[in-house]
Amino acid sequence: MAQVFLPKGTRDLLPAAMNRRLAIIDTVRKVFSRYGFEPLETPAFERIETLTGKYGDEGEKLMFRILKRGEGGKRGEVDSALRYDLTVPLARMMAMNPGLPLPFKRSQIQPVWRADRPQKGRFREFYQCDVDTIGTDSPIADAECIAVVYDTLTELGLTDFTIRMNHRELLGALAASLGAADNETALCVALDKLDKLGRDGVSRDLIDKGFTPAQADKLWAHMDGEPIPGAEEAEAALQTILQLAEELGVDPARVKIDRTLARGLDYYTGPVFETVLGGEYSGSISGGGRYDGLIGMFSGKQSVPAVGVSLGIERIFMLMEDLGLMPDVPTTTQVWITVFSEETRTASLQAAAALRAAGLCVQVSTRVGKLSKQFKDANNRSVPWALVIGPDDIAAGKVSLKEMHSGEQWAGSLAEAIERLS
Amino acid sequence: MAQVFLPKGTRDLLPAAMNRRLAIIDTVRKVFSRYGFEPLETPAFERIETLTGKYGDEGEKLMFRILKRGEGGKRGEVDSALRYDLTVPLARMMAMNPGLPLPFKRSQIQPVWRADRPQKGRFREFYQCDVDTIGTDSPIADAECIAVVYDTLTELGLTDFTIRMNHRELLGALAASLGAADNETALCVALDKLDKLGRDGVSRDLIDKGFTPAQADKLWAHMDGEPIPGAEEAEAALQTILQLAEELGVDPARVKIDRTLARGLDYYTGPVFETVLGGEYSGSISGGGRYDGLIGMFSGKQSVPAVGVSLGIERIFMLMEDLGLMPDVPTTTQVWITVFSEETRTASLQAAAALRAAGLCVQVSTRVGKLSKQFKDANNRSVPWALVIGPDDIAAGKVSLKEMHSGEQWAGSLAEAIERLS
Repeated sequence: MAQVFLPKGTRDLLPAAMNRRLAIIDTVRKVFSRYGFEPLETPAFERIETLTGKYGDEGEKLMFRILKRGEGGKRGEVDSALRYDLTVPLARMMAMNPGLPLPFKRSQIQPVWRADRPQKGRFREFYQCDVDTIGTDSPIADAECIAVVYDTLTELGLTDFTIRMNHRELLGALAASLGAADNETALCVALDKLDKLGRDGVSRDLIDKGFTPAQADKLWAHMDGEPIPGAEEAEAALQTILQLAEELGVDPARVKIDRTLARGLDYYTGPVFETVLGGEYSGSISGGGRYDGLIGMFSGKQSVPAVGVSLGIERIFMLMEDLGLMPDVPTTTQVWITVFSEETRTASLQAAAALRAAGLCVQVSTRVGKLSKQFKDANNRSVPWALVIGPDDIAAGKVSLKEMHSGEQWAGSLAEAIERLS
Repeated sequence: MAQVFLPKGTRDLLPAAMNRRLAIIDTVRKVFSRYGFEPLETPAFERIETLTGKYGDEGEKLMFRILKRGEGGKRGEVDSALRYDLTVPLARMMAMNPGLPLPFKRSQIQPVWRADRPQKGRFREFYQCDVDTIGTDSPIADAECIAVVYDTLTELGLTDFTIRMNHRELLGALAASLGAADNETALCVALDKLDKLGRDGVSRDLIDKGFTPAQADKLWAHMDGEPIPGAEEAEAALQTILQLAEELGVDPARVKIDRTLARGLDYYTGPVFETVLGGEYSGSISGGGRYDGLIGMFSGKQSVPAVGVSLGIERIFMLMEDLGLMPDVPTTTQVWITVFSEETRTASLQAAAALRAAGLCVQVSTRVGKLSKQFKDANNRSVPWALVIGPDDIAAGKVSLKEMHSGEQWAGSLAEAIERLS
């Protein structure tokens, strides 16, 4: 028999992991709803022309391409590819549904696929949790991106985080001030590595790219507070967003304006956000910003205001595990219904039905007799209770409950048992 | 600008549809949990060798193939394909995780992809909701497949349904009794069309396939009750499952043994189930059965007992819509927070924060001033309440609530408003 494998970079999510993920996603979904973001799902794959030209060369390389149906496919022709993020599908959907009332606020919690080199904690299939507001340039929408991240992380029990903000126009003014207006992208790419490389490393990187040492020095002077000419409006916009976020309940100590924040994606046009954890944890756990040009690439309209943020939920799952914040839900099964003998099976099945009707999650043992083995089955699955109905119990109109952890037993009527368990 | 399209046979699920689907899937997930089925997710795509040879010629044709990464892909080589169902990935997972405690009960709610010809209500991407029990041949596991379908449909408000049962060994004995033991598949395929073609049509179909008219007559005699030699054990097994299902709370009027039920898939080895609706609705809304050989195709073990059932959730969504059973949730937003003027915006944002902290779902208007327009925004989205905080309200320490449907207004403190809305 051939050996059995998963595709490279993918994984199964077994029940212990799934129970935790579902609990966390439930929290995320609730916070998203409280902010009026309504759920959307888009297809797993998009037409290839929808995706190409949106993610840069790197993205093009990492897309999973799907063969065309029929003869074309036999010749290796491709007509679609797996979703690479949730933002481009949203923009495509907005262009196809011009009648939606604006502003349109949507949440989307679905997997995306990227053929990255797999590494610890990095998979080729991973979930994203996005919220976006389309059709308004109100800074309330930008502030809500910050507030929704703040509320979600706080509700999940993460406390030591900082939401960094910057503005693309500020970066543009910065480049202009350095006399490098036509080299803004290189500047952003270099700045993006500041956490990793430090100032000296970024300077070297810039010089490699043709910047002068004087330009690099000027950069750090601006970073240390020297006003950036022409950045006044962007600075004011950031201050407004900060204030609105505070009015929405965000602790201002958790948000800071950071002139070095660049964010990788090309399509941002205004404020950009990123959340980092304190302590030993590097890398971001959420990112987003305003992208007023992307939807126009599909709809043909000049500019459709749009702003959104994405939670790096896979990193959040991992961090919560590391920090011991993961809700521990090895099983959703609450009661293991034992079967004493073939003769008492009916009583066990009827008890199971009664517990289920009361909303309890129960499994009926498919092993009959030898209660010790059935208790072991329950323990192997971390099921907290076992229910026993032997012939004596049936005669007395009773059931027994065993608390598996302590071993304590209790006996009473089925109705009392249900009340005790509920 | 190029026109924007979705891939053929796919769709976006906009908020009104998603809210309904999430409510229904929540019910399904709860019933699955009550039976002790624990959630599993597997990757969207599997290695091509995992999927080939499992779904027959038809399935091979309908699979979405994904190009290999790198040079091979450029030559049109394929190494994976999108998941075609949830059963084969489960079997592959079981083979890769031999240490899981058995019986292993899992639920799985994920999309699958089939390049079928798109038609009304038929999509190339659709969700399946499956439960399976692996590692036991106890008929309790078979009966639970029936009970879980019964409970789910009942909880969703569907009442006029029949769960049909048959047994593959009974069909084998039937073929043998007709002297067509080596032609069982043709017999099953013909019987599978009985609903569509009627008895005459099926007889003609069989005769086309080389059966004699006498064999066809004999078939109908068996269907009308003439005992099938060698089918006694299968008949007894079905009776046992029926009885256990009843003990689990299933109304016996909703289940019937139907000797004509064949089910398409090759891999079934024992009992098979299917649920049909009464009235004008044809086609099944759930199907399943026992497949003791499939996991062995991956694990190399001779036979691993397995039984499961799949809910046709997309058909259920459609039927519930048709029957007016769909929970009507046009929006999850409960309150539209108006903004009277730039000066009162802070009060509106703080009120929004307070409502959110109480778990309410609220949207803040990004339109400022002109309350009539803001009320229209709320109405356009079917949001039931609007909250108004004007300068007079602020001075009086009050807020106003407007019930959008009746137009009725109410005024009081923010705390009272929250209590009223909760």
